[in-house]
Amino acid sequence: MGESKRKKIIIDTDPGIDDAMAILLALSSPEIEVIGLTTIFGNVYTNLATKNALHLLEIAERTDIPVAEGAHSTLKKVLKVRIAHFVHGSDGLGNQYFPPPQVKAIDQSAAEFLVEKVNRYPGKITVVALGPLTNIAMAMELDHKFSQKVGQIVILGGAFAVNGNVNPAAEANVFGDPDASDIVFTSGADILTVGINITHQIIMTVADREKLAKCKGIFAQYLCKILDCYFSYHMDAYAIQGIYLHDPTTIMAVVNPSLFTYTEGIVRVQTCGITKGLTIFDNTVKRFEGITDWSNKPKIKVAVTVDAPAILQLIMDRLMNS
Amino acid sequence: MGESKRKKIIIDTDPGIDDAMAILLALSSPEIEVIGLTTIFGNVYTNLATKNALHLLEIAERTDIPVAEGAHSTLKKVLKVRIAHFVHGSDGLGNQYFPPPQVKAIDQSAAEFLVEKVNRYPGKITVVALGPLTNIAMAMELDHKFSQKVGQIVILGGAFAVNGNVNPAAEANVFGDPDASDIVFTSGADILTVGINITHQIIMTVADREKLAKCKGIFAQYLCKILDCYFSYHMDAYAIQGIYLHDPTTIMAVVNPSLFTYTEGIVRVQTCGITKGLTIFDNTVKRFEGITDWSNKPKIKVAVTVDAPAILQLIMDRLMNS
Repeated sequence: MGESKRKKIIIDTDPGIDDAMAILLALSSPEIEVIGLTTIFGNVYTNLATKNALHLLEIAERTDIPVAEGAHSTLKKVLKVRIAHFVHGSDGLGNQYFPPPQVKAIDQSAAEFLVEKVNRYPGKITVVALGPLTNIAMAMELDHKFSQKVGQIVILGGAFAVNGNVNPAAEANVFGDPDASDIVFTSGADILTVGINITHQIIMTVADREKLAKCKGIFAQYLCKILDCYFSYHMDAYAIQGIYLHDPTTIMAVVNPSLFTYTEGIVRVQTCGITKGLTIFDNTVKRFEGITDWSNKPKIKVAVTVDAPAILQLIMDRLMNS
Repeated sequence: MGESKRKKIIIDTDPGIDDAMAILLALSSPEIEVIGLTTIFGNVYTNLATKNALHLLEIAERTDIPVAEGAHSTLKKVLKVRIAHFVHGSDGLGNQYFPPPQVKAIDQSAAEFLVEKVNRYPGKITVVALGPLTNIAMAMELDHKFSQKVGQIVILGGAFAVNGNVNPAAEANVFGDPDASDIVFTSGADILTVGINITHQIIMTVADREKLAKCKGIFAQYLCKILDCYFSYHMDAYAIQGIYLHDPTTIMAVVNPSLFTYTEGIVRVQTCGITKGLTIFDNTVKRFEGITDWSNKPKIKVAVTVDAPAILQLIMDRLMNS
């Protein structure tokens, strides 16, 4: 694929085991050109997310790609953010405690980096948001035309017509910063969100992992090292012998959108109470009496079906051939 | 069916066009014995609900059944309750402005009546709740063992894995008193709730209505008079030439539970914010990290499938033969 046809993407990420797989997958995908990583809290604190992002680029020998560090607290400055160390290990990468990276993050903040890039390449940048949406909302605050200038924002976020994964109501990324999520979802940008109703269909089994272990490729070997912790969590929380490929699936929604179908409607986020972080999608079919909190908000795309075997095959092929 | 085998039911109701159909249907059903009506706001204000309940018993020549008036405000004393006059007409019965009833409500409040009856027939009373759950929650406050003494509470309430009907989040009855709903759903009583995900499958068409109009029975003739308004609302709000049989379907869940399947889990209600009145069901499959607001609450039954053609046929048969 010619350089000019490749989608320029910025991955906003909190690595994170499945983030690591997603980043390596993106770097193995000729359809996309990763022009930067921005970091956020979620699976780990933001400073560790930055360290891990730099480390992953070293593993991939792609330290030419800049890393911009993002917010350390939510948009409303809640400092006690939720960190999923029990999913990804205390180092975020399966308790492997890799040596610190030699390279450093750039001086720009994540929001500044995002704003600079969408202004440089208006309509051409795809932002892939794999963590809480704080950086994206901050970029929108920094440049009020960000939502028009960005090409597309592809989000791993929300639980549509299914239970959440933080609690019965909320999915982890939206729960991580509900206010930022509500701003992004109603910003008017071209948004595709992939919820856990989709990503829970893409499961890497123990057998898949064994296939990966037999490959000599750097990426496959690296991932096999860090996956134990993630398999253990899934057995403990869901009683499954497999792992949900949340972040890699979201990368695939950029690489090959034809493997998904989506519906369009308005998504709002509950920001208080027991269902804080809940996403409610309005299909706009019913005419409600009077104005609702969904009325007159811009629509986004919400993934509703996925060709799960094809996605898994594509992910496996790319990781095994890297 | 012998008297002793008939389920004793109390219908808590806000008539309401589909409430009127439900009450007449209950009075036409040999499986159940209606031992009282209690009234609540929702489709109309409570005083009008009482007047309409008495009027319907006059139509059915069943003024032997007592009517106990219920709460005029929500459990937390919100006086500005939501009234669905745009669905049922300003009189609640399709703008027919029937003459006032000759009979009167009893002196007991709805909550007092409910408490008296469950104490008189412990484990034997089925409460069918067709409106906001204020009276039921008040009965639980009045008698802390109400939830153990009541046989079953069958509720029309909630929107499970579908949009609401008041707004994209909330179903009307739960929205009418979210605090009361949360108390009832987590009370430990034997509860079956039938949400709009079920009742939106039971549609009386224009052709069904014509069949009803050809019957000479009092109930069929009466209902045909009041249905116009309800058909108009459905055309306007949902663009369908038919009406959802919410309340009659809920009566059928008492008459013939085998036409439904249900799942068991914990239901909590959001009581603030843009999704106030939302019901979130925890299927208790996932082990969440730490305690959630659903942890250690009692389970209830939530209807998940319905034999819609059989339910509609049963409703039509009973209304046409009354």
